[in-house]
Amino acid sequence: MELGFARYGKAEIRLLQVTEEAGRERLWDLTVWVALEGDFDTAYRLGDNSQILPTDSQKNAVLALANEGVGEIEGFALRVARHFTASLEGVGARVAVEERPWEPLQAAPHAFRQAGEVRQAVAVSRDAEWVLSGISGLELLKTSGSEFRGFRRDRYTTLEETSDRILATSLQARWLHGGTVGDWASSRESVRHLLLETFARHRSRSLQHTLFAMGQAVLEARPEVLEVRLSMPNRHHFPIDLGPLGIESRGLYFPDDRPYGLIQGGVRRPGAAAAPAWAWE
Amino acid sequence: MELGFARYGKAEIRLLQVTEEAGRERLWDLTVWVALEGDFDTAYRLGDNSQILPTDSQKNAVLALANEGVGEIEGFALRVARHFTASLEGVGARVAVEERPWEPLQAAPHAFRQAGEVRQAVAVSRDAEWVLSGISGLELLKTSGSEFRGFRRDRYTTLEETSDRILATSLQARWLHGGTVGDWASSRESVRHLLLETFARHRSRSLQHTLFAMGQAVLEARPEVLEVRLSMPNRHHFPIDLGPLGIESRGLYFPDDRPYGLIQGGVRRPGAAAAPAWAWE
Amino acid sequence: MELGFARYGKAEIRLLQVTEEAGRERLWDLTVWVALEGDFDTAYRLGDNSQILPTDSQKNAVLALANEGVGEIEGFALRVARHFTASLEGVGARVAVEERPWEPLQAAPHAFRQAGEVRQAVAVSRDAEWVLSGISGLELLKTSGSEFRGFRRDRYTTLEETSDRILATSLQARWLHGGTVGDWASSRESVRHLLLETFARHRSRSLQHTLFAMGQAVLEARPEVLEVRLSMPNRHHFPIDLGPLGIESRGLYFPDDRPYGLIQGGVRRPGAAAAPAWAWE
Amino acid sequence: MELGFARYGKAEIRLLQVTEEAGRERLWDLTVWVALEGDFDTAYRLGDNSQILPTDSQKNAVLALANEGVGEIEGFALRVARHFTASLEGVGARVAVEERPWEPLQAAPHAFRQAGEVRQAVAVSRDAEWVLSGISGLELLKTSGSEFRGFRRDRYTTLEETSDRILATSLQARWLHGGTVGDWASSRESVRHLLLETFARHRSRSLQHTLFAMGQAVLEARPEVLEVRLSMPNRHHFPIDLGPLGIESRGLYFPDDRPYGLIQGGVRRPGAAAAPAWAWE
Repeated sequence: MELGFARYGKAEIRLLQVTEEAGRERLWDLTVWVALEGDFDTAYRLGDNSQILPTDSQKNAVLALANEGVGEIEGFALRVARHFTASLEGVGARVAVEERPWEPLQAAPHAFRQAGEVRQAVAVSRDAEWVLSGISGLELLKTSGSEFRGFRRDRYTTLEETSDRILATSLQARWLHGGTVGDWASSRESVRHLLLETFARHRSRSLQHTLFAMGQAVLEARPEVLEVRLSMPNRHHFPIDLGPLGIESRGLYFPDDRPYGLIQGGVRRPGAAAAPAWAWE
Repeated sequence: MELGFARYGKAEIRLLQVTEEAGRERLWDLTVWVALEGDFDTAYRLGDNSQILPTDSQKNAVLALANEGVGEIEGFALRVARHFTASLEGVGARVAVEERPWEPLQAAPHAFRQAGEVRQAVAVSRDAEWVLSGISGLELLKTSGSEFRGFRRDRYTTLEETSDRILATSLQARWLHGGTVGDWASSRESVRHLLLETFARHRSRSLQHTLFAMGQAVLEARPEVLEVRLSMPNRHHFPIDLGPLGIESRGLYFPDDRPYGLIQGGVRRPGAAAAPAWAWE
Repeated sequence: MELGFARYGKAEIRLLQVTEEAGRERLWDLTVWVALEGDFDTAYRLGDNSQILPTDSQKNAVLALANEGVGEIEGFALRVARHFTASLEGVGARVAVEERPWEPLQAAPHAFRQAGEVRQAVAVSRDAEWVLSGISGLELLKTSGSEFRGFRRDRYTTLEETSDRILATSLQARWLHGGTVGDWASSRESVRHLLLETFARHRSRSLQHTLFAMGQAVLEARPEVLEVRLSMPNRHHFPIDLGPLGIESRGLYFPDDRPYGLIQGGVRRPGAAAAPAWAWE
Repeated sequence: MELGFARYGKAEIRLLQVTEEAGRERLWDLTVWVALEGDFDTAYRLGDNSQILPTDSQKNAVLALANEGVGEIEGFALRVARHFTASLEGVGARVAVEERPWEPLQAAPHAFRQAGEVRQAVAVSRDAEWVLSGISGLELLKTSGSEFRGFRRDRYTTLEETSDRILATSLQARWLHGGTVGDWASSRESVRHLLLETFARHRSRSLQHTLFAMGQAVLEARPEVLEVRLSMPNRHHFPIDLGPLGIESRGLYFPDDRPYGLIQGGVRRPGAAAAPAWAWE
């Protein structure tokens, strides 16, 4: 039998770093995943651990590197990934980082509240390097500017066309950079702004249609981005019918849990190569 | 055998209402719980349903009342509770409402993002009425101004005293009103502000100490509030020791998941009666 | 201002104990909560910690007592609660324990799989002692023997009567003992069996009706039990109507997530006093 | 800009089917995901919905096909996938099904309790067909027969070697079939048995080593299986040190939540082609 696929590492390494610059503190609240790939045949097949670096050592390396200063998570993920490929011959490393943002309270400079959606970075280092940025958990909704008409019908189609519906989603976005970026934070903030602005302003013929427009807006404005991948589940909001009670409904909707529409897609520059970084997700 | 305790109703009724005022839309994203108490002996014991109002009818009543306009959740919870006590003789009603706030996106007036902690309201109507407000899921952390010294020691005590530690919690707050309040929203916002400000500024000798100060600040400033109950789990952040690696740690902490300190308490005006509303939690 | 309610302790202390008897291993996989109540006025109000036993010490005490042998969780919870009331004057203690059961694999005596619903025990020690047992996460469903007719109607009632419906719930049960029980495990197993058997065989006129029958069956058969409290959410399963597709449905149901019926109740022996242990829940 | 990747469908379609054979009822409690891939360029780019089959229609198709009889989930997933590729030209379909098992209660033939780990099936139909089976949520632990020694060391390695440790994991297994199988249920049960038996009996030098042995055992015994992929997080159980309390620990462990070891791998027959079905995960 063959070992067809092998990956090991450490998942969900938690750390908080407090830094201070110009008298203002900043919190770095991270969760880190490390995964190594390579020729681990004798380890998996025979239990020969001589090529296995303990996942505990990997955790220690992450902490030691963090101790030198985390900074923006894309750069940190890349430094950690490079550490492993530089010190372990023939190994590829994938490092994912999630950051939960904290914002200072007005009342005191050393007090914070957690707010905002999770930020993500993924760095893959092997024969080449790739860096992804991402955000997740961004709940969006628009009450107008969304229709769904002219769709294909089959014998199971009972859905009625609509020229005005609530459009709601929980956005998960990731985007691939063409290289290392000077200022990860401002690049990320700009991409985030473009995604939100396009969602808000787009005349939507379908969620797929809006998804493409959002990715396109990013690529047109941000030359450092090669590809944007979006997952935008369609969180259905059905008008509540109070007719059986003899009541006319006014602006009342039922936010359903399940099922929901699964809507995903990627937008990329023409001729962009398929980056292996996506395959490690 | 006796029926010692009986309660039935409908849980997690979801609804979204879109309203418009002065050309600006507002979303009301609610989850509602209804529970009725009373003499349900023949229903539970014998299966005589003649006094049982289906939970489906309760859901319909909530939707019909919402259709008339939700408004601030404290007022809505109270209207729903009164509906049941007015229409069902000898029954007490507890209605809990959670609101997930949405804020408009700058780019378009009809597009929103979900942001901010969950708001809560509980109304109990029986022989009297009580209204609670609340917030939950507010993650707070301060990097200084927190010590823990001079504590009691026993044979199992190994904890060292500290005059400077990270203090972090996930705040759940509820407060009891002395009557109906004219402007629930501004009262709630003020209480929230007082809680955050006191957390940020307090010289903390313990989390219990800070909890009391937070409750006290609310009662001193808001005459409409009779009692504040706070649950403030102590989310431990332990300094990471890199000594075994020969490295000196610099501002690096481990946010531990479990166990955590369980810290709860209530602060109330002198002589305040114990409100039955708390017992229904 | 007054301190109206105060409680502190340690939550979710995790431990696994491996014991061996007659050549067979047994796993005790526990999560423990400790909460202390008492006159903590100077601690909360002034930050005087001299009466505050650190929650870290409480955790250590739980581990030290576990090290002497956990055994059945009701007995362990009681020993831990007594430890705190014996060593801290004027303090009441509530200790809750959850056990996740593991069963040995046939292939090897030292290998196990986790299976079965969570077991619970709560001991309260103050001026008196109370012990509760419990189970949670027991998903039950019956396809016949359940009707719901003759219910009260109001203007919001559109539900149709049914003489045959699916009845499904996620059972949470707790029961109060009249004293310490010689064999907690066999008592618990018997109560569990009575609950399941009654659920399965009862001719149900409502979920409330079945709830009472289940509690009654326990009390009639188990003299050591004083009161049973059950929470049995009504997990609706609606027949799926394929009529719009021109298809006749055959035994197809939609298990809805939300809303669900909230059905709770307690059955107790006549004249049983209200045990304060319930109020600590 | 290009549409580099596009997929849409319906997620988490819930259904329960009750069937009866030889006087015994059987419950099929399923959650179904449908995803379609193809040339959706005009839909995403231009909002032309003429090639978009509403996800609501997809849900209806799933329900209509379920109504004809679900049966084993691998077969059902394949029938649903084929339905879409047969009716939509140029489209590939991935259908995933999760089944939560119910077992009858002894007391009554129509009453059930949910028990056991989740079963999974994935069918991909495009230019060819692939079927995966799977299980997830199987918590396993062994108290002996597990060592970890002779591992690679670097400057961050502080872990000590151990020749006897607790090995615990939450098994997620998926395996690829070489074609359609006559009796999916018995094949799945046999694979499950081989996985558990090998975990229990294997003399483990590392979790990676045990993972390979488990996959190998399946491939050697089940000719219908081409490849097995296992995800086996290392759920660390650390011995609790009560030395600071002057107490000798006896068989007491701390089950840590995070971080945990990430251990994954696949075992396959020599020369097996890389099945695209895996890439859709």
